Amino acid sequence: MQYSNRVLNTPSSFIRNILKVTDSPEVISFAGGLPNPISFPVAKLQEGINRAIELNGSKVFQYSSTAGYLPLRQYIADKYNRTHNLDISPNDVLLTTGSQQALSLIAQVTINSGDGIIIEEPGYLGAIQSFSMSEPTFYPVALEQDGLNLEELESALKQPNVKFIYTVPNFQNPTGLTYTAERREEVYNMIKDHDVILVEDDPYGELRFEGEHLPYIAAGKSDNSVVLGSFSKTVTPGMRLGFIISKNRELMEHLETAKQASDLHTNIFSQYAIYEYLTHNEYMEHVHTIIDLYREQSKIMLDALNEYFPKDVSFTVPQGGMFIWVTLNNGMTALEFFNKAMEVDVAFVPGDPFYTSKTNVNTLRLNYTNSSPEVLVEGIKRLANILVATPKATL
Amino acid sequence: MQYSNRVLNTPSSFIRNILKVTDSPEVISFAGGLPNPISFPVAKLQEGINRAIELNGSKVFQYSSTAGYLPLRQYIADKYNRTHNLDISPNDVLLTTGSQQALSLIAQVTINSGDGIIIEEPGYLGAIQSFSMSEPTFYPVALEQDGLNLEELESALKQPNVKFIYTVPNFQNPTGLTYTAERREEVYNMIKDHDVILVEDDPYGELRFEGEHLPYIAAGKSDNSVVLGSFSKTVTPGMRLGFIISKNRELMEHLETAKQASDLHTNIFSQYAIYEYLTHNEYMEHVHTIIDLYREQSKIMLDALNEYFPKDVSFTVPQGGMFIWVTLNNGMTALEFFNKAMEVDVAFVPGDPFYTSKTNVNTLRLNYTNSSPEVLVEGIKRLANILVATPKATL
Repeated sequence: MQYSNRVLNTPSSFIRNILKVTDSPEVISFAGGLPNPISFPVAKLQEGINRAIELNGSKVFQYSSTAGYLPLRQYIADKYNRTHNLDISPNDVLLTTGSQQALSLIAQVTINSGDGIIIEEPGYLGAIQSFSMSEPTFYPVALEQDGLNLEELESALKQPNVKFIYTVPNFQNPTGLTYTAERREEVYNMIKDHDVILVEDDPYGELRFEGEHLPYIAAGKSDNSVVLGSFSKTVTPGMRLGFIISKNRELMEHLETAKQASDLHTNIFSQYAIYEYLTHNEYMEHVHTIIDLYREQSKIMLDALNEYFPKDVSFTVPQGGMFIWVTLNNGMTALEFFNKAMEVDVAFVPGDPFYTSKTNVNTLRLNYTNSSPEVLVEGIKRLANILVATPKATL
Repeated sequence: MQYSNRVLNTPSSFIRNILKVTDSPEVISFAGGLPNPISFPVAKLQEGINRAIELNGSKVFQYSSTAGYLPLRQYIADKYNRTHNLDISPNDVLLTTGSQQALSLIAQVTINSGDGIIIEEPGYLGAIQSFSMSEPTFYPVALEQDGLNLEELESALKQPNVKFIYTVPNFQNPTGLTYTAERREEVYNMIKDHDVILVEDDPYGELRFEGEHLPYIAAGKSDNSVVLGSFSKTVTPGMRLGFIISKNRELMEHLETAKQASDLHTNIFSQYAIYEYLTHNEYMEHVHTIIDLYREQSKIMLDALNEYFPKDVSFTVPQGGMFIWVTLNNGMTALEFFNKAMEVDVAFVPGDPFYTSKTNVNTLRLNYTNSSPEVLVEGIKRLANILVATPKATL
């Protein structure tokens, strides 16, 4: 059997393979990207579930519509209109089986083999994997402290058949970086006259623990804007509920066709349950509990990095979200560091799978949301010992 | 924006568009393919949900593995080993977001643009839609009373780059037909030396109300066998839980990669809940309740067809499942009939979307599982009146 080119060219998830190695209880893992379990309001969700069944009976178990549960789409529209000053209706919202499905659908409806996708470098590896199934040409643009590198973006936009730009403007995965307000405007001004979709994937946007919320790059301004949202980081990832927001009617119709072909519709039970949870609880109070925890955890990891890591190592300082991005500057690759780290039972994700055009990089991703204060410090100490014990000259 | 060829060539679901027209309460609808709500053991499912949360806590809300919840995969393996004399382990089971996702994944991992899929004609329109996203060449093979037409199958197998054969061997959608034991063996003997996957999609297999259960065509005999199963027809479709069974390791690994790229993993909450339901209740008793209802409903519709329809109309007599397939022989097309039927507030699905190579056909699908006895009879009477009032000569 000759399998399809698209699957043969799609990386199976590096992270998931790492997690198989690092899943034993004695390993300190900064590798995963899991929300802390306090993010799941278990008791309140259970109430929402009970209420959904009580109010709707067998409808929560029946087939349903591809676009999703109308009251939930209305809730999402109202919320984004209020918080981001958008002007969207439920018709501009398509519920998806997690944001991952949104990524897959967007590529499926826009990309013919070889068409271009502009992607942040480093970029979210789940997106790289998902897009790869549509056999695109990736045009990576460096993600800097302030956002996309504008010169590289300008040049990437001149490439043939570029269909969309994929960004994570807030607390990006993997770097933790956030586009500044200025860079958002600069990016928007550069793209606004191009026939190219700007995807702003924003799963972490509400989890800001420093600074002010910033407006989206293109949402509310352009018909080529797509915003992706998710309940995975603040309610539950296990129920796989995400959404696509766009006022581009033609795009949304194609996405709905592709969604039908993919899984008919999103789990309707979960849509009802999450809707009932959201409309009967102080959601923002819950979000603030998560924010307070992540602020504390990130601070502990950053303090430990400052205290124990050699000064030639640099790292990002996130204003929210779940990740810190580390750059080694001692000649060691992240994969070499990973192998040594596994010997002392500490795991992280080497940077390689976040690049479409580089290997053997010297960058790596640390997650701080799933470890206790003691474990955060102990893990960073062990990593620091490796770096201190390996003088530059020996590499 | 130029959208992808694959989405431009994919039919948006004819049935879903029909359902939008026929969704008003005064319409008698034989159009849908919805299980009767008695199929959903609401109270027992609620118990399963409560137990899943109580036993597993936040794990039911967290990210999970792509392959699916191991105890549920074990349950499925045990069941198929017992009921179908297979020899499968949990590793041979991949949980999917409904069977629809299974169809999409199989096409994604095997089909390069133009590669061949052999499909029953008429065939399941959800599969046609899902496969279309991979831009295959369809080779339709007539589905007859006993199963696939063997001469046409032999000739289709000689076409270039045929990757798989898609069948629904039990109570097929849309025809209600079931392959005989003899035809299953004949099909198996014809394909066994070809490097081609045989997909046996079996969502209705347990819902047999006449005759004996039959062995699968290739499952248990061939590494190129794929069986698809689902909880949609006997527990809940709303939770979108299906599965792929195959002992072909390479295929299953590619499917898992494509699944990761599509939605990371199947809703884990629903996997836990359905597992708890299945392991704490007399599932087969529940299935027999559904069987008894569908036997009765099919009999009422068949009796009405015999009594009221003109003798030049032929129709299938299902041994299980949810559908009857009607062939008009008076020169009227199914679409003409549909338009007249809507005038008297009766809906069905005209045959056209079930064919990849024909239009303006004279066949149509009737669903009997979602109407009361009175409504079944009244709907058939109204349809009969149209046929009786439209003499052949006037067409």
